[in-house]
Amino acid sequence: MADTLSALRSLMASHSPPLDALVVPSEDCHQSEYVSARDKRRQFVSGFTGSAGLALITMTEARLWTDGRYFLQATRELSDQWKLMRMGEDPAVEIWMADNLSEAAAIGVDTWCISVDTAQRWERTFTKKQQKLVHTSKNLVDEIWKDRPAAEVNPVVLQPAEFSGRSVAEKLKDLRESLTQEKARGIIITALDEVAWLFNIRGNDVSYNPVVHAFAVVTSESAFVYVDKRKVSPEVYSYMKEKGVEVRDYDAVASDVSLLASNELASSLLENESQEKDAKQLESHPNVSVLTANGTEGAVELEYNLIWADPASCCYALFSKLSSGQVLLQQSPLALAKALKNPVEMDGLKKAHIRDGAAVVQFLVWLDKQMQELYGASGYFSETERMDKKKPLEAHKLTEVSVSDKLEGFRASKEHFRGLSFPTISSVGPNAAIIHYGPKPETCSELDPDSIYLFDSGAQYLDGTTDITRTVHFGQPSAHEKASYTAVLKGHIALGTARFPNGTNGHALDIVARIPLWKDGLDYLHGTGHGIGSYLNVHEGPHLISFRPQARNVPLQASMTVTDEPGYYEDGKFGIRLENVLIVKEADTEFNFGGKGYLEFEHITWAPYQRKLMELSLLSPDEVTWVNTYHSKCREILAPYLDDSEMAWLKKATEPISA
Amino acid sequence: MADTLSALRSLMASHSPPLDALVVPSEDCHQSEYVSARDKRRQFVSGFTGSAGLALITMTEARLWTDGRYFLQATRELSDQWKLMRMGEDPAVEIWMADNLSEAAAIGVDTWCISVDTAQRWERTFTKKQQKLVHTSKNLVDEIWKDRPAAEVNPVVLQPAEFSGRSVAEKLKDLRESLTQEKARGIIITALDEVAWLFNIRGNDVSYNPVVHAFAVVTSESAFVYVDKRKVSPEVYSYMKEKGVEVRDYDAVASDVSLLASNELASSLLENESQEKDAKQLESHPNVSVLTANGTEGAVELEYNLIWADPASCCYALFSKLSSGQVLLQQSPLALAKALKNPVEMDGLKKAHIRDGAAVVQFLVWLDKQMQELYGASGYFSETERMDKKKPLEAHKLTEVSVSDKLEGFRASKEHFRGLSFPTISSVGPNAAIIHYGPKPETCSELDPDSIYLFDSGAQYLDGTTDITRTVHFGQPSAHEKASYTAVLKGHIALGTARFPNGTNGHALDIVARIPLWKDGLDYLHGTGHGIGSYLNVHEGPHLISFRPQARNVPLQASMTVTDEPGYYEDGKFGIRLENVLIVKEADTEFNFGGKGYLEFEHITWAPYQRKLMELSLLSPDEVTWVNTYHSKCREILAPYLDDSEMAWLKKATEPISA
Repeated sequence: MADTLSALRSLMASHSPPLDALVVPSEDCHQSEYVSARDKRRQFVSGFTGSAGLALITMTEARLWTDGRYFLQATRELSDQWKLMRMGEDPAVEIWMADNLSEAAAIGVDTWCISVDTAQRWERTFTKKQQKLVHTSKNLVDEIWKDRPAAEVNPVVLQPAEFSGRSVAEKLKDLRESLTQEKARGIIITALDEVAWLFNIRGNDVSYNPVVHAFAVVTSESAFVYVDKRKVSPEVYSYMKEKGVEVRDYDAVASDVSLLASNELASSLLENESQEKDAKQLESHPNVSVLTANGTEGAVELEYNLIWADPASCCYALFSKLSSGQVLLQQSPLALAKALKNPVEMDGLKKAHIRDGAAVVQFLVWLDKQMQELYGASGYFSETERMDKKKPLEAHKLTEVSVSDKLEGFRASKEHFRGLSFPTISSVGPNAAIIHYGPKPETCSELDPDSIYLFDSGAQYLDGTTDITRTVHFGQPSAHEKASYTAVLKGHIALGTARFPNGTNGHALDIVARIPLWKDGLDYLHGTGHGIGSYLNVHEGPHLISFRPQARNVPLQASMTVTDEPGYYEDGKFGIRLENVLIVKEADTEFNFGGKGYLEFEHITWAPYQRKLMELSLLSPDEVTWVNTYHSKCREILAPYLDDSEMAWLKKATEPISA
Repeated sequence: MADTLSALRSLMASHSPPLDALVVPSEDCHQSEYVSARDKRRQFVSGFTGSAGLALITMTEARLWTDGRYFLQATRELSDQWKLMRMGEDPAVEIWMADNLSEAAAIGVDTWCISVDTAQRWERTFTKKQQKLVHTSKNLVDEIWKDRPAAEVNPVVLQPAEFSGRSVAEKLKDLRESLTQEKARGIIITALDEVAWLFNIRGNDVSYNPVVHAFAVVTSESAFVYVDKRKVSPEVYSYMKEKGVEVRDYDAVASDVSLLASNELASSLLENESQEKDAKQLESHPNVSVLTANGTEGAVELEYNLIWADPASCCYALFSKLSSGQVLLQQSPLALAKALKNPVEMDGLKKAHIRDGAAVVQFLVWLDKQMQELYGASGYFSETERMDKKKPLEAHKLTEVSVSDKLEGFRASKEHFRGLSFPTISSVGPNAAIIHYGPKPETCSELDPDSIYLFDSGAQYLDGTTDITRTVHFGQPSAHEKASYTAVLKGHIALGTARFPNGTNGHALDIVARIPLWKDGLDYLHGTGHGIGSYLNVHEGPHLISFRPQARNVPLQASMTVTDEPGYYEDGKFGIRLENVLIVKEADTEFNFGGKGYLEFEHITWAPYQRKLMELSLLSPDEVTWVNTYHSKCREILAPYLDDSEMAWLKKATEPISA
């Protein structure tokens, strides 16, 4: 690691201009949350493996910014050369740079890896001291990364209509209507899940996210997808052509965006068609007028001249190819279109969650038995102290990794399974307090009948993506653990049963899950919910339920998905989180004050909450009723997927409780 | 009214430059919410009597913008010449002007009557079409207002230390420390309650607000108060002089701010002292350095050159006298200092609220008896239908105005009473749906044993300001009225019992009171809470509990006051609101996650909620317990102020309920 930093510093010194600081973000050229192995530059440089963070290297210092989910993990993973900067507590990275770097400092970054939003915010902050953001000539990390993994070549696959529910033609039509509305003649699409969603394609270029490394450009008459052509089969080629989508080389996006800027980007698909048809098409297109005045026959100028780029996902490098007056910087219309699930997607999501819930129950049944047999635990149901303190043979030991593999196995046995949707968080005792803990085979903990076990996991199925968290104990939980679990459950129920008028955003709703925890002075340093894709990314915007300001931007709308996942964590002791996926739907309220219509949530995750961890005296009658109703639906819905012994276990796990 | 508009239009036409539009805001030169009779220009022009709103007059149109509290009232009060613009539904006034007025239109306003914030927001919006905000040469409304009330001359009175709790010297010291911290050499104070609070003075220049029409300027060495000198007794003069505060003419503020801008504002109090002492003082003052270099002996230049003005309260006219580089536009430090009540103020507020609660109970006892005797109502306690439908003699009729006068009488009998803190909202049936209803003797409704009666009222006592709302029914409430009352009560309890970490603002908390209402599709078009003064304004910032964005700016802090007043209103039918004043205090939570400390509320309002209006089956056990605990404290706390029959009534009204 020391070598890495000094190698980088010598590249920084020899760079033109010489760099006073180098920023290494977590993101790839698509501003992805999860990136492929060869794009894990921030991890390579700093050793910190969390999914979010940013490294800053100066000639004398190395600092890593990350958020509350990762404070503990970063502390463990960072070497002495690094200083951890806690987001929300320490100054933001651009403020720190402005305050601590010298007057007129040159701050290097690969501008393919930062968004327009980020770059512009930094540049505004840098003006005070005439500091400059410098686009590095190459990615300096790649220069020194000797064994950087090669690019994988995974085939692009088509997502059939039975799962996507909406054709590419329909999606392109809607997109072009949005362009017309906003007076834009084209849009640059950089988010991987937006490209996949738009063209109904899936891939395998990023672990856990079934996306293809690709950009897209769509104009009023053409559409382009930029992808490594080795990934594109003849079948996919002709599928694309049929939809009017031209496949181009991944790297061609840079020059094509320059052509788009100067209005010279033309599709070879259109060229192939007869001039006559061209002219007819163009005349009939409301956005296009054929100029003949200056004699350049057939030359075409668009009435609308804006080019749309989403400032949160478009990289600064591509944006820089456009002139500032011609850019429409606004959230991509695909972000919201993708978030509003169509009936086919909704149906698929529900079915995927039922199969997934069955896998979770099978896992719990299996784990309960193992914990009793191997460790002499009192088990999922009993609260007595275990009689014999068994220690299993080394070969039979259950570890965080081995049980999460078992959980994956139950999921893999289900129809349409395509892999996990994120690295399973399988965490015993103190590890459960590390919010995004990822166990490693060599270092992970053994299961412990005297400790809480938290698992947060999900899968990709062809018909939907899942994400669920349950927290369990196979021995005797402490009164404090029970009180904490119950507070988290109360927050989970409060949000999950909330109703709210149209127009309410996830920033306002976030507090609903926290109020029951705050009564006891408990809280959690992460958001409360995120959207989830349809066989796409497990974290999907544009909405979220969170105290973060961006949660104010998008009201929740009927047919969005969102998770409900409050928690409570005690460093070095234990962690608790409960998570269901919810669908936003219209509420049949008795009244409709204000005439705006009211919304509520439908839970689509099915797995029991552990009765033993509830302090029933702390639950209100309404909460007890909710748990009982949910549990009885669990039984009913999961029954077709469970065998007799599993069903007997589930019946016991879902027996009605009373306060 | 037609004459008014045409008179204004002819002044607009003859103005230099001619005006395309004239804005008439509600506020006076101090951006006050409540203004004196001679400052009610918007009311004079439009006929609309609500406390908030803005009139816009063009050559062909007249429009009035107001907020949700006043939609119904404005509809009733505005003539056909006026069009009501609903804030939150219709475009904001500046957007409307930018969209609808012509290119380069001249929009006139008396810039003494609009804040810097407002003026700057408008000017930004106007740039698109090169429209101009024009400071009118005079206030055009005053020009045509023939019988405009004369300025009242009310004496300035001193608020003694036993009620203010903090000396002027201490307050000036703190203020000057804030100036030093922000590198400001002076501050312009325009908010009437800030002037009154800073100098521990009170007055009678605005109905309901015990303030003096005055400005203040404070620099590191001087302090000035600008007030009609006829209001200042020799005693107050010498009090001010003793504190180092120079009394100047009200109108002198304009020229003095110009002098402040050019650093030439000098206090005659300082001139009177010996030069030697001057020099010593100045040398010892950290913000001041004596320049001798250029031979101007004794010339003094301040290191800090900023002048502080609060953009929300400072009028644009005064701000315009400063050069843009020298202004610190930031919330006045007095706003927060005033909001954080000291122990003496806190003690006074609690005592005032106890006396006030006793007056409210006495009023209810009296009203209950009257309703039964005069109208044959079943009364406050009984839910049976009334037997005989009495009609009282004309002379004995109870009206919204007559009963509110009676309520005022009970308050006036209490120690330290100084008047009401706002016009009593005394409203029967459909009138209760008009959120800020103000009954008029000629037109007000008669009390009705078959209708809800809502009263929202408060008083000024020397030791504190009060504000309470109760909703009652003396006959047989409908099931819908009961369900609605119960939903409002649930919201009121949910907010009143909330705990939250330090740093939480009133924007986040607003939803806590609404969630129980939203369950049934109910809501209310007003904020949930406002700060309250210590024998000062009943609405006091800088914090509030509201969905409005400004509620994000200030976290709630221990020792702030805030109201808790959710409601529900059915146009043309009834209205419900429940309001207590709360004090924010540190919560003794079992844990302290995040180490930030948690806060909670202490209720300081004491008066029963009507059991008959509660649908007990809708209350949770925790809510039942809360009502019973609150009611038993009511008995205990109010007992010393009630006679035997009143106490017997209160005991019955506070009997424990059970769900």
